[in-house]
Amino acid sequence: MPQISTKGAEMPESPIRKLVPFAEQAYKQNKKVYHLNIGQPDIKTPQKALDAVSNHNLSVLAYSRSEGSEQYRQKIADYYKSKSIYMGPSDIVVTTGGSEALLFAMGSVCNADDEIIIPEPFYANYNGFARASDVKVVPVVSRIEDNFALPPIEEFEALISPKTKAILICNPGNPTGYLYAKSEIQSLVALVKKHDLFLIADEVYREFTYDGQQHYSIMQEKGLEEHAILIDSVSKRYSMCGARIGCLVSKNKSVVSTALKFAQARLSPPTFAQIASEAALDTPQSYFDQVIGEYEERRDTLVRELQKIPGVKIGLPKGAFYCIVELPVHNSDNFAQWLLESFDLDGETVMVAPAAGFYSSPGIGLNQVRIAYVLNKESLIKAVAIIKKALEAYPNPK
Amino acid sequence: MPQISTKGAEMPESPIRKLVPFAEQAYKQNKKVYHLNIGQPDIKTPQKALDAVSNHNLSVLAYSRSEGSEQYRQKIADYYKSKSIYMGPSDIVVTTGGSEALLFAMGSVCNADDEIIIPEPFYANYNGFARASDVKVVPVVSRIEDNFALPPIEEFEALISPKTKAILICNPGNPTGYLYAKSEIQSLVALVKKHDLFLIADEVYREFTYDGQQHYSIMQEKGLEEHAILIDSVSKRYSMCGARIGCLVSKNKSVVSTALKFAQARLSPPTFAQIASEAALDTPQSYFDQVIGEYEERRDTLVRELQKIPGVKIGLPKGAFYCIVELPVHNSDNFAQWLLESFDLDGETVMVAPAAGFYSSPGIGLNQVRIAYVLNKESLIKAVAIIKKALEAYPNPK
Repeated sequence: MPQISTKGAEMPESPIRKLVPFAEQAYKQNKKVYHLNIGQPDIKTPQKALDAVSNHNLSVLAYSRSEGSEQYRQKIADYYKSKSIYMGPSDIVVTTGGSEALLFAMGSVCNADDEIIIPEPFYANYNGFARASDVKVVPVVSRIEDNFALPPIEEFEALISPKTKAILICNPGNPTGYLYAKSEIQSLVALVKKHDLFLIADEVYREFTYDGQQHYSIMQEKGLEEHAILIDSVSKRYSMCGARIGCLVSKNKSVVSTALKFAQARLSPPTFAQIASEAALDTPQSYFDQVIGEYEERRDTLVRELQKIPGVKIGLPKGAFYCIVELPVHNSDNFAQWLLESFDLDGETVMVAPAAGFYSSPGIGLNQVRIAYVLNKESLIKAVAIIKKALEAYPNPK
Repeated sequence: MPQISTKGAEMPESPIRKLVPFAEQAYKQNKKVYHLNIGQPDIKTPQKALDAVSNHNLSVLAYSRSEGSEQYRQKIADYYKSKSIYMGPSDIVVTTGGSEALLFAMGSVCNADDEIIIPEPFYANYNGFARASDVKVVPVVSRIEDNFALPPIEEFEALISPKTKAILICNPGNPTGYLYAKSEIQSLVALVKKHDLFLIADEVYREFTYDGQQHYSIMQEKGLEEHAILIDSVSKRYSMCGARIGCLVSKNKSVVSTALKFAQARLSPPTFAQIASEAALDTPQSYFDQVIGEYEERRDTLVRELQKIPGVKIGLPKGAFYCIVELPVHNSDNFAQWLLESFDLDGETVMVAPAAGFYSSPGIGLNQVRIAYVLNKESLIKAVAIIKKALEAYPNPK
């Protein structure tokens, strides 16, 4: 029998994949499950985007341009301008989700066995894209005690080798909710300039910042043009995760023309989704004000309720809609499974994402979980109450 | 300045990419250009598929399942059954186009530097997917004199090394239009069994066979279950190139579970396009009968007209909607550019795809072009008349 590749065997599973059968079992037992495990918002997609697709007048569902339509890229550039990011349509390659933009970025800057330094915990699928691209992730540990602030820049510098091609950050962060300060960005900027590296920033949660704080993009840094690669997506911004539209953005012309070759190989991003995404750019600011207000209240609710539980530590989120929570358990994998399999409070339980999958260093984050606050406040209050009772009842095996 | 990767630098360009500026220049000169260069059919998408999207009732455009919805995969399995291919929903991973299915297949069976044997000329983007996956393409030359039939199986066997992981075929072939006979498939089957290789078949043109000939799928071969990987797509079948929905199909459970890990990393295929693709499966046979009849007439027209030109050789197509044509020129790249830049017949010219990009061996196919018969008969007649006149006028530099 022919065998699959080592690459395939080593592709990581999603951190929640092995919990799925236990969730399905819980449904069969008629348990209600509060899903704090996923980044699928319950927020409505802007009606304009949905209507644009309903009103399509295509008779042939044809390929679009590999880099996305000129018109759509111009509108993206206009959107960036409103964020003090100055880009032209030719600096943008439209991709099939932020996922594909990350794959294109890795392929454009790394050969097999090259390295990318990433502060961890990080978005778990970076591991998958790296493995698929034969790229080695070199992690720098950020700590819950610091709310997952940027680790000291010396820790990055100590890890730079001749194989290091880029530093990758997610800002605001999934799974940490951390929003990098301008000064943190600038310390990274100085480092990538000093060592001639790329700085790749996944800014798909740009809109989601709280407490009146401003997002500072790597693209606002003058002099970083040849180093900076921006990863973006409509998924979270407009609650359009199923569109699968993102983009890769850079002023470095070699990077864009290389990404475009990857884009040409796969022909085009999805056409209907581009129609929706272009229309979504007309979403009024009031939509975001409402959505951000809602998330901020949810965050406040979640943090307030969690802080009532003895032994729980929280990385206080300033953006996105996730936080990492340290629980008084030995192994959050086991706890998450036990929640689904063996626990309920009045027929209800909770699904969380064990955090170990968000680290690339083995043995870290074993007592942490990621919580996505994508449910309404009432549900969050109930869900945390369930966690509290569960922790009291949990036998907590080593 | 940080540099792009060797991988990125070596990513091949689309065979027509460098012609695009010359085509744009031709438009500016108000030339009419007959596009024989692309695989974008002018055939209408089934109305049911377009209507299903118009009538969507989504309020949140959410992720779909990474492997595609259970319901859609069940309908795909039903479709295969009608083609004497017996698959269950769990043997299918829905992908973002056949492109992604090819990437998943390469990643699942090959490590960096592993080899896949492919008869050439082949679909140019196989080169791109291979480069992106760090896989080496090992070509076996098929010949226009044989209408691009399968080369002798000894030629494949001679190329098998410890690094060989798979043989990849496209059936019916892009760019050759060749439809493999059952006996040819069976000689490949015997070879992959003998050497414990995977056999990957890109069958996205399955429906498009002419002269009453039947397509024979690798999936109809008993005993090949652990070796066979099928690549499929809705793009050509339903003239839905812009959907970006395909699938990877295998009875080999390790292959499917590995492909699924790649699929999980990119979260989900596009949701609107899945709605369209599921509805497209209800397309009545009469649609295909009409489309196949139309393509068959186009093929007959194209071949008849081309055969009138002295010095032109054609690989007679039995399927898909392409053929490779040998022209009495030294370099078809130059000729294709000259057609756009310097020639017109009553204000009209033709764009063709130089064939060298469909070969991986250097120096082969330099006097060949690929012609896609995706225009109506009247246009094809005019386009071939232009090629005839152009060949008479062409200075034909070395």
